Amino acid sequence: MHTAGDVRVEEREDPRIVEPTDAVVRLTATCVCGSDLWPYRGVEPVDHQVMGHEYVGVVEEVGSEVRSVKVGDFVVGSFVISDNTCEICRSGYQSGCVHREFVAQTIGTQAEKARIPYADGTLVPTPGQPDEELIPSLLAASDVLGTGWFGAVAAEAGPGKTVAVVGDGAVGLMAVLAAKQLGAERIIAMSRHPERQKLARFYGASDIVAERGDEGVARIRELTGGLGAHSVIEAVGTQEATMQAVGATRPGGHMGFVGVNHDVSIPGIDLFFANIHVHGGPAPVRRFLPELIRLIWDRRIDPGKVFDLTLPLEQAAEGYKAMDERRATKVLLTL
Amino acid sequence: MHTAGDVRVEEREDPRIVEPTDAVVRLTATCVCGSDLWPYRGVEPVDHQVMGHEYVGVVEEVGSEVRSVKVGDFVVGSFVISDNTCEICRSGYQSGCVHREFVAQTIGTQAEKARIPYADGTLVPTPGQPDEELIPSLLAASDVLGTGWFGAVAAEAGPGKTVAVVGDGAVGLMAVLAAKQLGAERIIAMSRHPERQKLARFYGASDIVAERGDEGVARIRELTGGLGAHSVIEAVGTQEATMQAVGATRPGGHMGFVGVNHDVSIPGIDLFFANIHVHGGPAPVRRFLPELIRLIWDRRIDPGKVFDLTLPLEQAAEGYKAMDERRATKVLLTL
Repeated sequence: MHTAGDVRVEEREDPRIVEPTDAVVRLTATCVCGSDLWPYRGVEPVDHQVMGHEYVGVVEEVGSEVRSVKVGDFVVGSFVISDNTCEICRSGYQSGCVHREFVAQTIGTQAEKARIPYADGTLVPTPGQPDEELIPSLLAASDVLGTGWFGAVAAEAGPGKTVAVVGDGAVGLMAVLAAKQLGAERIIAMSRHPERQKLARFYGASDIVAERGDEGVARIRELTGGLGAHSVIEAVGTQEATMQAVGATRPGGHMGFVGVNHDVSIPGIDLFFANIHVHGGPAPVRRFLPELIRLIWDRRIDPGKVFDLTLPLEQAAEGYKAMDERRATKVLLTL
Repeated sequence: MHTAGDVRVEEREDPRIVEPTDAVVRLTATCVCGSDLWPYRGVEPVDHQVMGHEYVGVVEEVGSEVRSVKVGDFVVGSFVISDNTCEICRSGYQSGCVHREFVAQTIGTQAEKARIPYADGTLVPTPGQPDEELIPSLLAASDVLGTGWFGAVAAEAGPGKTVAVVGDGAVGLMAVLAAKQLGAERIIAMSRHPERQKLARFYGASDIVAERGDEGVARIRELTGGLGAHSVIEAVGTQEATMQAVGATRPGGHMGFVGVNHDVSIPGIDLFFANIHVHGGPAPVRRFLPELIRLIWDRRIDPGKVFDLTLPLEQAAEGYKAMDERRATKVLLTL
C-alpha cells in the first residue's frame, strides 16, 4: 500500500531464511482483512507498506532449529508471530508473546511467499495436504475465525448463555459460529444487511436485531427479560459498537472485544456502573489453531463461506475496493 | 451535605417501616468513605443530600415479610440494597440487582437510624452480639473490606500470582488483605506514604513501589521479569491510576477496578493491545459478607485497623476535613 487507497502488486525480493527458527512458506491463498481497511481509509498511517497477515501454504524451507514443521507441510499461521514457549504464550496469550511481531506490519502475506519467524511457535501443520475445498476455511482460521473464536471465549459464550454479537462482518459471523460451537443457548446477531443476516443464521444465530446504539441495547434488554445478554462480542471497533456492547451486557456478564478500536474512548464511569467483565485485544489464534484445524478437517464447521469474492492476487486492489465499498464481506486472493 | 465542603449534623424524622420487606436499624457505628469526598470536593453535584452508606447496628423493627433478620440482631449491611433473589443477585452480582438502590444516594447512614429496604437481601446478622473491639472490622466489611475483596477477586488474585495494588487508601489496603487471604504469592503495594506502607506490610504486602504513572509501570515490570503482574487492583479511580493499572497487568492477566472513576476515559486501543481482562464496578459486598463476617468473628483478619481516626457522629464535618486533607485514611463515627 503506497498510501491510503493506493494498493499495488509489485515484484519484491524472495524471502529467505534469516534466523535458524524461520520458515519460508509458499502461500496457497491469502486474503484482505477488515483491519486492512484502517490504513486504506487513512485512519492508520501508511507509507509504502507490505500488507496482509492471513495465510496458508506449503513450507518451502526451514531454518536449522525448526522442529515441528518440515518442508512440504501444509501450514496455517497466526497473524501474530509467537515463540509459543515463553510464560505468556504458555498461559494461552501467544498474542502477547515476549517475541510478538505483527505479520501485518513487517512481513505482509498478500504475497507469493513469506518468511515466518518462530515457525515452530507460529505455524500449525494440517494432518495432510488439504482438499481444495478446505483452503478457504483453513485460511479463515488464520485470523477471522480465530479472532471470532477468541471473542466468544473472551465473552465466555457457552451452555445456558444468551450471546449477542455486535458486528456482521467476517469476524462477527465467525463469532456466531464460535458461540454455536461453544454451546450457547441463544445467539443474537446484530445486523441490518439481509445477506449477512442469512449467513449469521446459517452459522447459528437464533435471533436478529437490526437496531443499533441505544435502540440496539434496548432491544437486547427486551429479549433478555430486561437483564442484558450474558455474553456480548464486539466485532466492529467503533465507539458506537463498543458502547452498544457495554450496554447490552448484564451485570456480572462478559464482553469480549476483538474489533481493532481506533478512536474509541470508554468512559470509566460507564464501565464502572455496568459491573461487567471486559476482555479482548489481538486474538491468541495460535492457542486455538489445533482445535480449529481439526474442526475444519472433520467438516464440522464451514468458516470458508465468509469469503464472498475470490480474486487472483494481481487484482488485490479491486479486493480492497470491494470490501471498502461493502460489496464484499471478505475477499480471498488466490495464487 | 448542604453543598460541597459543607457537612452538618441535623435532626431528621425517625425512619420507619414503609414496605413489608424493610427493616429499621439503630446504628452502632458508621464512617466516612473515600467516595464521600467526591461530592465534598465538588466533583459530584450535591444539594442538601443525606450522606453515608457504611453501617452496622441492631435491628429495631422489621416489616411483616422480613424472614432472615429479627429485632435485636446485630447486622452488617451492604452499601447497595439488593433483593438477593433475582437472577443477577443469584449470579453473585447483588451490586447489579434489579432492585438495586445505592444507600449513599437515598438512605444515608451517617445517622442514628436507617430504614433498609429488602432487609433479607441486604443485611447479614453476625453470629451473636459482637465484642466492642470487633465493631470497626465489621463496619469495614460493609464497604471498604468488601470492595477491596471484590477488587482482589475481580483481579483473580490467588496462589502463584503476583498481585499489584494501585492505591494505598482504605480500599487499597483492604485489597492487600484480600489478596493475602486469597493466597497470592507476592503482593506489591504502590504507596509513597510511610504510614500506609507500614499498614500495607501488616496486611500482607511483600513489596512496596513508590513510583507512579509510567515509572510505576516500569517498576512493576522490572519486578516481574518484564512481563507485568498477573493481577492488578485499581483502588483510586483517577486517570493516572487506571492507566497505571492497565500498563502493569501482563497480557492475559486480570485487572480489577473498584475506585469510583469519575473523569476517567480509557483509550480503547490501549485496552486492545494490553490483551488483559478488566472487571470491576460497585462491589457485590453482599456476596462476600457471610465469609467476611466469619473471618472477622474468628479473629483471622483485622480490617478495623484502617480506621485511624474515631469521632462522635456530631463531629462528622471534622471527619470529612481530616480525610480530605489526608490527615486520616478512614474515619469511624461513633453513636
